[in-house]
Amino acid sequence: MSDDIGELNVPSRLLLGPGPSNVHPRVYRAMMAPVIGYLDPQFLQLLDDTQRPLRALFRTENDMTIAISGTGTAGMEAAIYNVVEPGDTVIVCFNGFFGDRMAQMARRCDAEPVLVEAEWGRIIEPEQVEQALKANPGAKLVAIVHGETSTGILQPLEEISRIVHAHDALLLVDAVTSLAGCDLRIDDWGVDVCLSGTQKCLSAPPGMAPLTLSPQAMEVVAKRKEPVRSWYLDVSMLRNYWGAGKARVYHHTPPMTMLYALREALRIVLEEGLETRIVRHRRHAEALWAGVEAMGLQLHAQEGHRLPSLTTVRVPEGIDEMTLRRGLLQEHNIEVGGGIGVLQGQVWRIGLMGYNATAQNVLGLLYALETELARQGFKVETGAGVAAAVQSLNAAL
Amino acid sequence: MSDDIGELNVPSRLLLGPGPSNVHPRVYRAMMAPVIGYLDPQFLQLLDDTQRPLRALFRTENDMTIAISGTGTAGMEAAIYNVVEPGDTVIVCFNGFFGDRMAQMARRCDAEPVLVEAEWGRIIEPEQVEQALKANPGAKLVAIVHGETSTGILQPLEEISRIVHAHDALLLVDAVTSLAGCDLRIDDWGVDVCLSGTQKCLSAPPGMAPLTLSPQAMEVVAKRKEPVRSWYLDVSMLRNYWGAGKARVYHHTPPMTMLYALREALRIVLEEGLETRIVRHRRHAEALWAGVEAMGLQLHAQEGHRLPSLTTVRVPEGIDEMTLRRGLLQEHNIEVGGGIGVLQGQVWRIGLMGYNATAQNVLGLLYALETELARQGFKVETGAGVAAAVQSLNAAL
Repeated sequence: MSDDIGELNVPSRLLLGPGPSNVHPRVYRAMMAPVIGYLDPQFLQLLDDTQRPLRALFRTENDMTIAISGTGTAGMEAAIYNVVEPGDTVIVCFNGFFGDRMAQMARRCDAEPVLVEAEWGRIIEPEQVEQALKANPGAKLVAIVHGETSTGILQPLEEISRIVHAHDALLLVDAVTSLAGCDLRIDDWGVDVCLSGTQKCLSAPPGMAPLTLSPQAMEVVAKRKEPVRSWYLDVSMLRNYWGAGKARVYHHTPPMTMLYALREALRIVLEEGLETRIVRHRRHAEALWAGVEAMGLQLHAQEGHRLPSLTTVRVPEGIDEMTLRRGLLQEHNIEVGGGIGVLQGQVWRIGLMGYNATAQNVLGLLYALETELARQGFKVETGAGVAAAVQSLNAAL
Repeated sequence: MSDDIGELNVPSRLLLGPGPSNVHPRVYRAMMAPVIGYLDPQFLQLLDDTQRPLRALFRTENDMTIAISGTGTAGMEAAIYNVVEPGDTVIVCFNGFFGDRMAQMARRCDAEPVLVEAEWGRIIEPEQVEQALKANPGAKLVAIVHGETSTGILQPLEEISRIVHAHDALLLVDAVTSLAGCDLRIDDWGVDVCLSGTQKCLSAPPGMAPLTLSPQAMEVVAKRKEPVRSWYLDVSMLRNYWGAGKARVYHHTPPMTMLYALREALRIVLEEGLETRIVRHRRHAEALWAGVEAMGLQLHAQEGHRLPSLTTVRVPEGIDEMTLRRGLLQEHNIEVGGGIGVLQGQVWRIGLMGYNATAQNVLGLLYALETELARQGFKVETGAGVAAAVQSLNAAL
């Protein structure tokens, strides 16, 4: 019968795009653990076991450090909806796809987003934020993306945080692509609200969203005039659910296997060591950058502010970028991303996230890229990319 | 170091509570399939493969039949938020825990819920709905729970649907505990919005929420005056993401392994046959009911309207219900639920859902229950429960 959808048979790809990245084999194994009920005594242990390493990864003491039962986008919605109310002025830094999304979400809360703009591929300068705060006294929040998956920018946050707090505003940071792959210090840097995802540098499947709120942010939540617009994502209820040691109140049935996956992914990060992992991400990203430049390609993101976990490479003149990506997928079994938003057709997006940030992946990709570029008549000195990458890898030792 | 959380080691329980239920082994296997990107050509096939059987299970032709990337509660929020706007009058049937939750969500949309109440353990009568609609002309929506996990009631919907549509309102149904375990006919019964979950009669882990909207409901969405309050759950964007055959627009990174789980769970239901599966649920529930009554216990839910997938049993006088549940868990490795809301301490909640609706589970539970009741001095004729259950099972053949 034509209604039979047959056995699931998906290809095993090397996922070097904007995410999801490949899942660590140990994470798969953890997901095989039997589902337990949320009433089970072991469930409370599971929540604790997840919260403690999450705090370590965020480098925070925030009591309110949890994982939202949804994907990174749900995490973003949770971050914004909990602190934003109708009529609030919210400064949204807009230099990529996800800044725009935060502005859209702020509008759904009937807040007024004020955009601070920069070119897609350049950072937001602290002075721009200061100017916006001066022009909008009483602004409640500044929202900014730490690792912009659409542009390959790693946004410096310390100076901006200082400015934001000098104006008594909160700092909200999207760390979907940076957590566990780039330096991120919630407490030292004074980040008030921070969200992430499981499917990037954590090397777990997509499906949960780490989230942390500072005591200051929780105070803003406590003082809200109207309830959070989302019932599902309301942290004042979620805190009772996750609340360490206190009486837990049923809120929703958690995605148990995703919790198992997250727990194991966090454990793997701590075993490697967060610092070591961040260095590993940078080392392999630098090798990739050296390789693509040696091939005569250009990196898109502003020098000095490149995101190790996601690299944007400019599509050279005369190259059909979709054909090239199709070649990578079909001939080499490698997925990379194309540009989105204003960068559509202009860049490729190459992820080296978590488990995937390895020498063999860098070299394998450079080889495949060289092959597919050559197929379209682009002149590359044979092996120039991989040679430069090896040189960079060695120099970093 | 005390920071090491150690290997994940959760117990393998028989989950006969209100959900999650035990996951089918084939579903676990499907979750081991490699994660692919949402840009992968195979991903579109995966969405199609999920939508078609979902429509079969809902018994609907609705184009807008998808799974929300969150748990059943996210599905409920999606169902309500998409059709409700500020100022709307929404009639919410309140005869259990989840009716109350729907009212809370409607309030977060600044709508005015009008409650139609019945005792927890009795159905809502069609005349009550009719009266409420007459008293509130222009009411937009009637929201009702099909299978109430808190009370064990299976709510008849056909007559209520006729009344709702005669008043030009929409009918919204929570089918979290009934989909794939009880008769549910979206198109025949004229249900406009229906949500469910993966962790009950589908025997997949919690984490996604099947959702279907009729063309009439989608028209209401299209005519909204203000955008849906949730960006994450906005079906006007999700339709472009899932939209069969049409150009798909990136919205969020789907929880890929959960999609694999859902796909396999749906396939298992269709292999068994939806009708056969529904009969199996009823047959084993009836055996359970016969068994508990033979043991001198009382069923809580109104006769003739008992929910096969979730049975409520009254706690007899003199029995400490928490001690009994602890005994079931610790001595027999069986989880059952206690009462919630106004039924706290008054009932046990016993689920026989999907994969778990089998004779050995019914008999094993009745034996364990007898043992634990005896431990508290409750007089049960030895083997009376299991004998009655076997009789019922045989009679049903």
